[in-house]
Amino acid sequence: MSLRVLGIDPGLTRCGIGVVDVSATRTATLVHVGVIVTPPDLPLEQRLLAIARGIEDVLDSFSPAAVGIERMFAQHNLRTVMGTAQASGVALHLAASRGLTVGLHTPSEVKAAITGYGSADKKQVGTMVAKVLGLSEMPRPADAADALAIALCHAWKGPAVVVRGGALTPAQRAWRAAERAAHV
Amino acid sequence: MSLRVLGIDPGLTRCGIGVVDVSATRTATLVHVGVIVTPPDLPLEQRLLAIARGIEDVLDSFSPAAVGIERMFAQHNLRTVMGTAQASGVALHLAASRGLTVGLHTPSEVKAAITGYGSADKKQVGTMVAKVLGLSEMPRPADAADALAIALCHAWKGPAVVVRGGALTPAQRAWRAAERAAHV
Repeated sequence: MSLRVLGIDPGLTRCGIGVVDVSATRTATLVHVGVIVTPPDLPLEQRLLAIARGIEDVLDSFSPAAVGIERMFAQHNLRTVMGTAQASGVALHLAASRGLTVGLHTPSEVKAAITGYGSADKKQVGTMVAKVLGLSEMPRPADAADALAIALCHAWKGPAVVVRGGALTPAQRAWRAAERAAHV
Repeated sequence: MSLRVLGIDPGLTRCGIGVVDVSATRTATLVHVGVIVTPPDLPLEQRLLAIARGIEDVLDSFSPAAVGIERMFAQHNLRTVMGTAQASGVALHLAASRGLTVGLHTPSEVKAAITGYGSADKKQVGTMVAKVLGLSEMPRPADAADALAIALCHAWKGPAVVVRGGALTPAQRAWRAAERAAHV
């Protein structure tokens, strides 16, 4: 019994995508990792369409039960933030349109979940992601490693993240069942 | 012969939607106007899903040939910009996924197109929108009037706006045909 989580590191130029299976004992295996790249000379709506199609392909191919997405951060420059926010809007909409639970995680929450240290650098995060998933080297580019880190963070945070209005979501029920199974 | 244009004023709390028919002689009639409202206490992905469904309903019901969307502006506060950008990302993606031509217009371009003055206030824009469309009063709330203004701006700017890579888009062909018809 495991929970399959899609992690998305939204971006207009590079959108990181990672899928992991996390067991009830919180061990994790890599299912898929990739980056959707869109060229800057493509019209904005075509870039967003390409990102949407890439995300939909992954949803269709791997059927994750939950989706973790990086929460927008206020410290970037405004131009980058806008493209990133537009890509994250598309990702959030697609997840919701399939009835999947969504969790938003700030970069420091993700770093803390993976490395124990909220100010870890990209290399530390990539190294830990590789270690956790038993990979011989860290996933590249950084957007791919970040997407896996977001997926792991989302899975490890477990039900507390996805509690909403008191009722159990499908992911929470899956977790609870998996945890019960692990304790038997 | 007329061109049907959907104008969208993206916003997370209030997303303005306006549909107009614009003839080859540039006269315009109102087809539909509305505002998609989403409550702030709804999870972000559910708000974006509600906005997407509202836009899809309008695309299904009125089959516009082209879509004008407000181009994000750098001067707002970052928190508002992020929600607005996420909503605009969803709108851009939906338009592109249906193969519609999309034009992005800054607020000052829209104001200049409607009132002749790029720094016009909301009341001036609303008054002119009502006058152009032959309405007895200005559309409310302001987001609805702004969406109609964006649609009118997009239609009036005509082919120049949607030229992309040299080839004529369906909207450009429609315009060209309409203009030829008007001159016969």
